Amino acid sequence: MSAMTNRGWRLATRPEGGFRPGDFLWFEERLPDLSDQQVLVRQIYLSLDPASRGWANSSAGYLPAIPLGSVMRGYGLGLVEQSRHAGLAPGDYVQGLLGWQTHAVMDGRDLSTFERDPDIPLEAYLAVLSHIGATAYFGLLDIGRPQPGETLVVSAAAGAVGSLVGQIGKISGCRVVGIAGSDEKCRWLTGDLGFDAAINYKQERVLSRLRRLCPAGIDVHFENVGGHVLDAALACINTRARIVLCGLISQYNEFVPPPGPRFLGNVLMRRARIEGFLVIDYEDRYREAMTPLSRWLAEGRLRYRTDVVDGLERAPTAVNRLFEGANTGKLLVRVSDEPAS
Amino acid sequence: MSAMTNRGWRLATRPEGGFRPGDFLWFEERLPDLSDQQVLVRQIYLSLDPASRGWANSSAGYLPAIPLGSVMRGYGLGLVEQSRHAGLAPGDYVQGLLGWQTHAVMDGRDLSTFERDPDIPLEAYLAVLSHIGATAYFGLLDIGRPQPGETLVVSAAAGAVGSLVGQIGKISGCRVVGIAGSDEKCRWLTGDLGFDAAINYKQERVLSRLRRLCPAGIDVHFENVGGHVLDAALACINTRARIVLCGLISQYNEFVPPPGPRFLGNVLMRRARIEGFLVIDYEDRYREAMTPLSRWLAEGRLRYRTDVVDGLERAPTAVNRLFEGANTGKLLVRVSDEPAS
Repeated sequence: MSAMTNRGWRLATRPEGGFRPGDFLWFEERLPDLSDQQVLVRQIYLSLDPASRGWANSSAGYLPAIPLGSVMRGYGLGLVEQSRHAGLAPGDYVQGLLGWQTHAVMDGRDLSTFERDPDIPLEAYLAVLSHIGATAYFGLLDIGRPQPGETLVVSAAAGAVGSLVGQIGKISGCRVVGIAGSDEKCRWLTGDLGFDAAINYKQERVLSRLRRLCPAGIDVHFENVGGHVLDAALACINTRARIVLCGLISQYNEFVPPPGPRFLGNVLMRRARIEGFLVIDYEDRYREAMTPLSRWLAEGRLRYRTDVVDGLERAPTAVNRLFEGANTGKLLVRVSDEPAS
Repeated sequence: MSAMTNRGWRLATRPEGGFRPGDFLWFEERLPDLSDQQVLVRQIYLSLDPASRGWANSSAGYLPAIPLGSVMRGYGLGLVEQSRHAGLAPGDYVQGLLGWQTHAVMDGRDLSTFERDPDIPLEAYLAVLSHIGATAYFGLLDIGRPQPGETLVVSAAAGAVGSLVGQIGKISGCRVVGIAGSDEKCRWLTGDLGFDAAINYKQERVLSRLRRLCPAGIDVHFENVGGHVLDAALACINTRARIVLCGLISQYNEFVPPPGPRFLGNVLMRRARIEGFLVIDYEDRYREAMTPLSRWLAEGRLRYRTDVVDGLERAPTAVNRLFEGANTGKLLVRVSDEPAS
């Protein structure tokens, strides 16, 4: 029954602090037959994202809480193997909330399909041409609204989203300063991705470095982290600055949220705007982002890295790489092999 | 030389914490002759505003720092006594940054004049038809954008701005909840001003009261205070909530800004917007506000209170009423008598 067996991880207990391996329970079970509109997807890459920590809490956020005992929620990419949905056929590539499992039986309407360009590695369809690219694209351009000549600062700049945000900032004509957690990450940002400067927040004093590296002040700040990095940025904002609040990864593992930025007074004084952003609000507009993202990718103007962990059984420990800042670029789990091309 | 003598307060030292009387130095001096474009104004009412505390700091904010030894900055209302400016004549009422002094010699272009309606008390031209009314009007309508049926929460709701914001919120069709510092203030809000509910933050638990009084969540929060009141509001915001950051009076006396709101995560989750607002950005649009404000005032739909302190010599102690929450409505100093009508 091997071809008909699904394997994966269920959420067994609510995490306190960071995820512990014991929060998940491995299962192996027979796949059900398809109902009308359903498809069977074999997952190839599972995306591990910071949002997963909030999803595991007992309280609903922008999505319902995951019931204990259910398959852990996760975004992934795979191949349709069977279909009872008119729009999808075996062999089609799809993306969607496949979950932490080798196979997913889902309503075809909850999946999006894409035409694979053979010149683009499959990983890029999660690292760039996905919710990740859409987050960077709409978060920066729609909420941050950078203008040529402005200064953009990005936190978690070597992460999946941050690395794209900085590059789209350069394409938009901005001076771009990234904040990341190691010298190696910083070298990647300035050496390979074209950032104008980078700050290693674990080694350098962020506020004084920002003051030096942003002599004209900060016009757009793209926040993925929270905590003292956000505060340092707020201390340097210009009049009418826009702060895109895209993530607060430094506090996702905290039960009681830590105090927020002291420099709110600067938001007032500078008539700045802090705006929360979730990419799920842009699902209807994904195509609008995918066209330029694909072009920039083909032109070599958008680069990415992936941090690929082999085997779904490693997902419960691998997910914590995000919260430790261990990954550079997009953290993925290789669940099964790509089809030979 | 009495008619030609100017009296007032100079800023002598930078305050640390709250204003102390010794931060100011009383002066009496001969008024200079007018240069071309200048007018001599006799001040009638001086407005004491929370912004004055920031103005006294050594660092420039949205206005330059007040040099030590200069007349303390302040907004006021007075009568033109002499003019070498073509647009102003003796007997004209004017408003502007007259300062903490009995008379001001100023360039006429830095003053705005108004036609006095004899049915409107002169105090109302500072309490409502002024930078105060413009702050409430543009801050709420332009930044907060309340829609009929939405819930509006206002902090420092019995203050000059907050009391108008709540009433304009009612005119806009909102459910309005005010937060103030005494039962008497709360009674004024609900009994006289038409607020739907009020919370005494010194006696009640703000978060649990907000949860009860805003069963549909908060759509617009108008913040004048900062600190735990802001945090409680952020905990209750709806998707796409707008937080108007108009003032942070709880921290103006602090040398090191206190930690900010813990519930930034909710701003992200709810895709909310925190936006700083200063009325100086709206000077060109004041007239747009004064027409409806005058009409609402005449119709009795907009009420106000003033807290009038007699005599400019009391300004240095009176200004602290703002930071102690001692005033209800607009805090004014009567500098000289109104002309007999």
